[in-house]
Amino acid sequence: MSLEHVVDIDLRWGDADAFGHVNNVVFFRYLEEARARVIPDSGPGSTILSGGLVVAEQQLKYLAPLHYRKAPVQVGMTVDHVGGSSFRLACRVFDAASGTVFAEGFVALVTYNFTTGAPRKLSEDERAWLATYPQEASTTPS
Amino acid sequence: MSLEHVVDIDLRWGDADAFGHVNNVVFFRYLEEARARVIPDSGPGSTILSGGLVVAEQQLKYLAPLHYRKAPVQVGMTVDHVGGSSFRLACRVFDAASGTVFAEGFVALVTYNFTTGAPRKLSEDERAWLATYPQEASTTPS
Amino acid sequence: MSLEHVVDIDLRWGDADAFGHVNNVVFFRYLEEARARVIPDSGPGSTILSGGLVVAEQQLKYLAPLHYRKAPVQVGMTVDHVGGSSFRLACRVFDAASGTVFAEGFVALVTYNFTTGAPRKLSEDERAWLATYPQEASTTPS
Amino acid sequence: MSLEHVVDIDLRWGDADAFGHVNNVVFFRYLEEARARVIPDSGPGSTILSGGLVVAEQQLKYLAPLHYRKAPVQVGMTVDHVGGSSFRLACRVFDAASGTVFAEGFVALVTYNFTTGAPRKLSEDERAWLATYPQEASTTPS
Repeated sequence: MSLEHVVDIDLRWGDADAFGHVNNVVFFRYLEEARARVIPDSGPGSTILSGGLVVAEQQLKYLAPLHYRKAPVQVGMTVDHVGGSSFRLACRVFDAASGTVFAEGFVALVTYNFTTGAPRKLSEDERAWLATYPQEASTTPS
Repeated sequence: MSLEHVVDIDLRWGDADAFGHVNNVVFFRYLEEARARVIPDSGPGSTILSGGLVVAEQQLKYLAPLHYRKAPVQVGMTVDHVGGSSFRLACRVFDAASGTVFAEGFVALVTYNFTTGAPRKLSEDERAWLATYPQEASTTPS
Repeated sequence: MSLEHVVDIDLRWGDADAFGHVNNVVFFRYLEEARARVIPDSGPGSTILSGGLVVAEQQLKYLAPLHYRKAPVQVGMTVDHVGGSSFRLACRVFDAASGTVFAEGFVALVTYNFTTGAPRKLSEDERAWLATYPQEASTTPS
Repeated sequence: MSLEHVVDIDLRWGDADAFGHVNNVVFFRYLEEARARVIPDSGPGSTILSGGLVVAEQQLKYLAPLHYRKAPVQVGMTVDHVGGSSFRLACRVFDAASGTVFAEGFVALVTYNFTTGAPRKLSEDERAWLATYPQEASTTPS
């Protein structure tokens, strides 16, 4: 798994629902937060979020229940496709210590200009930044 | 679309994120709420949620941005598979008046005994209740 | 209580926490939503939210547990102070049918210009709109 | 401020609302999380949350806008009253590095038996644990 970029995410007690588990919806919040934390505040790549980014599609399989705990969970992300104005991340929420995977799936994102209301091309800087990230498969513009 | 069960869901102003749209994560909350509202409080089917129900997998494609508004959105659901201790709903979030579809996808659910920590068989009553719902495809126990 | 402006707010199953009650934090979300719904989309008053509005202070006492239900709860609001660039609402979350009050308190709001980063004076239109709302006490500019 | 117990809380990008600031409601979530983290997992005090704890009243004044950032904020808590089956925390959300205070207020909590639906007396162990925490004022059973 050394190809994966991993971000620690703190749980919140309020993430649990009436069944006492972290609610299924909240796992997508963890993925969002991991993306927010992996995008740099300045330099190449920093414009990906600030320039506008929307989720085009996402999917998760839930593999094990997650209970509130003070230790963070880990979100692992691998770039598995880069297109002209989009990229896709394979994602999993797991516990690095035990190896337990709580959920896994993917998120497809589109770089988007909120002013024009249309996708915007990934810049050379943004593509260069994505290329520094672990790649699962061949990267072909679409 | 007459085969679809449709539930009105009220938006909340707080559902929007810093980009000013209803956040992508919140759409899964709308699906959850639509399920909670479609399951009856008593009689056949009422045990599906109270007896324990977990989401096994879910996926959404986002097709149009949704802004806060006082009018509800519609969540449409169709049963597209029933298994031994699971069922799957095809779902979409849309505006019935204009026909705009904001997101569409599916949710696969497992009836689950939280006491034993294992899936539980759908009861005859629960299966009968699911059968009263719109079916997209053949229903085969798995 | 005929002086009170009342808004129906739909609960969401996900509003409950691991204790099985609507979480204390979520009650403030209900107050926010009630404010969003009471402010008109056009005409006098419509600029109060769109022109920028921030919460300066809020408080709630919790009087009875609230469980998820399909019927909405009621949020009642009374204007109990109007200042130069602020106003205060006395609020309660209750069940109109039974009279049960789940929580009560207040929210103090400041009309705020996000561009200048400073409070902005309530316009004559906005003050006229607030004056059409139930007033608990004398209204004195501060 | 050395009398204060301080907990780091990570922000989430999704905590911001359409105005681009951390939403006022979310500050109460930060307070909740700080409480969850300060209560020990075992030993004296550990039963305070697991034995049942409800919020009786809470209040916040908002003093400065908080924007999403990767560095945590600090939540400071001081016990300012202990009663027979209740205690009260003075709270603030601040940035330890700059000294900026984003919000301050209090939370009054009641130890509560969810089975009987009534308050339960603080045990000797629980009182001893609370006494190890910074006390702002004289502690008098009520």
